[in-house]
This record gives sequence, structure tokens and C-alpha cells, in this order.
Amino acid sequence: MKFCSACGATVSLRVPAGDALPRHVCDDCGEIHYLNPKMVVGAIPVWGDRILLCRRAIEPRYGKWTLPAGFMENRETTAQAAARETLEEACARIRVGPLFALVNIPEISQVHLFYRAELQDADFAAGAESLEVALFHEAEIPWDTLAFRSVTFALKRFLEDRRNERYGVHTEDLALARTSLPEGT
Amino acid sequence: MKFCSACGATVSLRVPAGDALPRHVCDDCGEIHYLNPKMVVGAIPVWGDRILLCRRAIEPRYGKWTLPAGFMENRETTAQAAARETLEEACARIRVGPLFALVNIPEISQVHLFYRAELQDADFAAGAESLEVALFHEAEIPWDTLAFRSVTFALKRFLEDRRNERYGVHTEDLALARTSLPEGT
Repeated sequence: MKFCSACGATVSLRVPAGDALPRHVCDDCGEIHYLNPKMVVGAIPVWGDRILLCRRAIEPRYGKWTLPAGFMENRETTAQAAARETLEEACARIRVGPLFALVNIPEISQVHLFYRAELQDADFAAGAESLEVALFHEAEIPWDTLAFRSVTFALKRFLEDRRNERYGVHTEDLALARTSLPEGT
Repeated sequence: MKFCSACGATVSLRVPAGDALPRHVCDDCGEIHYLNPKMVVGAIPVWGDRILLCRRAIEPRYGKWTLPAGFMENRETTAQAAARETLEEACARIRVGPLFALVNIPEISQVHLFYRAELQDADFAAGAESLEVALFHEAEIPWDTLAFRSVTFALKRFLEDRRNERYGVHTEDLALARTSLPEGT
């Protein structure tokens, strides 16, 4: 951030009075521009005992498989975000169930949420950001070509809970693997 | 938003190619500026059977009681945010427990999270944003002067679960009461 989005003047990084952290503060109008983590919200859509996954048609992780998920928009709820992303990426309508997983990825200032969900019908198709969309039995899940570790985490916990016939809410903090691209960007 | 924070040129509200919603797009460098919901993270700190609350020394809701909570910062986890806010507002150190509540307030594009927590000791004091900090037995909680409805929701569910000796994870979507100030701002 170099310029004030309110007045167009330059900004400086400094600690405002009464604050503890440096912020981008406008040199002219004094507006303080806070930067906060972003939420990525997705679903674990099931149809019978199969799980819907999307193969990414966009970077990062072009060609890898993921649960439908994306950046939450202003003025929607987390459950609405999960349903919207599933519709956009998989052209699928879901009934959103309980919150299932919360994954922090502090190095990139993201919080990922996943909801349990049921497909309303078996109609789905690749949305604009997907190469293909398919249903997977547990044994068919492409673990080696999943796009994000938060997706791996959510799927593993989901399958464990399903086996145990008891679903929880799972939280995890992920550190970045230094050898890989930033996660979830 | 009127100016591009990257280059200082003016921005226009328009739907970028491949997008579904209008965004602030720079008329010069083309940068797309996304606006996303903000997370407010807090704790329900207990000491024995009492709960720690803070009386706000800042607007909005100056003078009202709240659980320690505030805007999550970049590069921290949700649990770290809960601990930091408790330290800042109540000068209290907590052991952060499990996630307890997620409250959507879509009209102001906020998601509030509350964690169960235990005070590490009985040392606490009003931080810069608090007029006073105190421990409350259930019968003493100042329901009529709580600052935010998300706090009321979290406290009510917490007391119910404590009575039942079984804690869950609770989610709620709050609509704004038209007669009151925007919540959680």
C-alpha cells in the first residue's frame, strides 16, 4: 500500500497514537488503513457416500483437486459463502450443514472454514474456475494431487468422523512448508 | 474507496472480466481492490465459576460490558488473537481452549469468533480500551448493559452448556436491529 484510498495522497507506515502496531497512515487526511486476515470458506459436499471435488482451472495449483471454496464476500454469511462457492465452482446446489473445520494459515493471513454439506441433487458441472468436477469414494480421493493442505486436513478429519459416526468441529494451525508455494493464495 | 492504494490513480466500480460482482478497479494500473469481511475474535475467560468482562472505554458502546474481543490482525491465528485481545483489554493472560461460537453479522461484513478460555491467574486490570474489568457470577452478569449481541449470544450459550456439562460449537447469524447502532463496529 503506497497511496491513501480515501484521498490519493501518499501513506506512511507508522504506529498511530494508542495503537501497538505500525499501520498505513495517510500523510494528508490522516486516514488509518488497517489490513486484516481474509476468510476462505468452503464446503464438503456429499452425495451418498461420495464427496464432490473440483479440479482447479486457475492458479495457484492449476490442475489440482480441491473442495469448493473461495474468498468470503462482504455482506454474506459464512454458510452463504460456502453455498455460493459451490455453485460457482461446481454448478451444484447444496444444503449447508454444521461448521466442520477452521484452519489458520497465519503466514498468509488467511482463515479457512469448511462446512459439512449435502448436494441437493446429482446435477453438477465444471464452473468457470474448474476443469472438471467429480464425486469420489473414500478410496478414490486423489491425495497426492490435492491443491491445499487445509483441504487435506478437512477431508481426513471428515472421513475419520464419518467412520466413527460422530462429527466434531476441528481446528488446526498450518505452518507453510518452506519448499512449496504459499498456501491458499 | 476513491483512489488506488498501489498507484494513487482514481478507481472505478466495475465488474472485472470473469468476476460476478462490482469491484474497485484502478483506472490506470488495473489493480483490483477486493473488500472482504473482517474477523472479530474474543475469549470467554473464566476463573473458577466466574466470567471476566470488560467495560468499554471506547466507542461504540462506551460504558457497556463486553467479553474481551477485537479485530484479528494479519499474521496471527484466531487463538492468538483471542489471547492478545484479552491481554490488551484486561491485562490478563489466558489459556485458550476450544472454539465456542461463530456469529455472522453480514450487514456489517463481520464474523465474530469466541473461544473458551481460562485465566492463568487472578491478575487483571483495565487495559487502555477498558474502564474497568471484573469477574461475574452467572447471577451478576449485566445483561441489560452488554455491548454487543454477539457477546450476549456467546454468554447465553456458554452458561447453558456449562449447566449441561457439555460444550458445543455454536453458530448464529445476526440481523441488525434497525433501532440500534451497527453492531460490532
